[in-house]
Amino acid sequence: MRTFIIIGHRAKTSGDFALNDLCGSTGRLDVLLRCINATFFLSGNIRRDTEIYLVLLGEPEPPKTIHLVGSELKYLNPDERSTGALIRNALMKETKNGEIRSTPGIYVSRQTFEDVLKDLKVQIIYLREEGDDIRQTDFQDDAVFVLGDEKDLTEDEEKILKKYNAKTVSLGPEKMHASHCITIVNNEMDRRKI
Amino acid sequence: MRTFIIIGHRAKTSGDFALNDLCGSTGRLDVLLRCINATFFLSGNIRRDTEIYLVLLGEPEPPKTIHLVGSELKYLNPDERSTGALIRNALMKETKNGEIRSTPGIYVSRQTFEDVLKDLKVQIIYLREEGDDIRQTDFQDDAVFVLGDEKDLTEDEEKILKKYNAKTVSLGPEKMHASHCITIVNNEMDRRKI
Repeated sequence: MRTFIIIGHRAKTSGDFALNDLCGSTGRLDVLLRCINATFFLSGNIRRDTEIYLVLLGEPEPPKTIHLVGSELKYLNPDERSTGALIRNALMKETKNGEIRSTPGIYVSRQTFEDVLKDLKVQIIYLREEGDDIRQTDFQDDAVFVLGDEKDLTEDEEKILKKYNAKTVSLGPEKMHASHCITIVNNEMDRRKI
Repeated sequence: MRTFIIIGHRAKTSGDFALNDLCGSTGRLDVLLRCINATFFLSGNIRRDTEIYLVLLGEPEPPKTIHLVGSELKYLNPDERSTGALIRNALMKETKNGEIRSTPGIYVSRQTFEDVLKDLKVQIIYLREEGDDIRQTDFQDDAVFVLGDEKDLTEDEEKILKKYNAKTVSLGPEKMHASHCITIVNNEMDRRKI
């Protein structure tokens, strides 16, 4: 399993937003929608061995975590608007304990960033410019890749990563959008067949 | 200069489409919009030394070519909908001879695929699964990368590439979406500072 975790620092935690203004009215949920595309889509296929957690920290009910599971996903299309509609459906579900299934392969919970990490118990990779080059890094099976949305991780979030012995890894000389980072990681792991 | 050319085999050649249905009503123009995002966006910046040609072959007035020039671009945002609006504006312009400027950095013309290639006169790279590995390939400055949208290039298009001595290059073991291919190429060229 290949896993991505992305923190949406301002991303809305209710389904009360317009699909016509995903960029302006959602706390940059659009960034996370592009991450979903990068995580799962191959040409004519979906990466079934991959999952992503979107940790949403915006108003009105932070935190909420949306968990997408490649092996179960249905109804996912590559465009932002239809993916936005699936995520909006998930955010309309009532969340109390545990993960609630919204549509096939899409779950929503009240998990924090640390809750997600705690449950995974695997090698954690923090994607950031100052790290070791990904091409020179050894990975375990089931590595988990953590990245921020359009904002870097906060100091507190970095402290949590440190507690879980995260290794910092860089993807190249330029600071890239989160979705582009996921594409690069997928390509590198594909080449190693991890 | 880094240049991408992507052929939209069914992509609409008029601005007569709804921004609320970019995936369904545009001959998969949404694929090309994601290619624009991958071509130009860095975190907090735009790649000014990069350009892309979208060769649109769908109804009602094929061919039309949209040319985006990084050094001149304004008003480009990373989301699909607002990029779709810019391209729709370009497709509403009357096109006769030469490139017509629609908005800063966005031009529209009646150029064919071969017209675009003919004018470039540089090393042409055809991105396809059966090629040599990009990581083992030497590139000239100003290389041009050609790829299809959600369909492979036709035999006739491949013949044109052959005429211009295109070299076939592969990005990895999986067949990826066009926008993901562009991200991988950008990362590889960034690493080489080409």
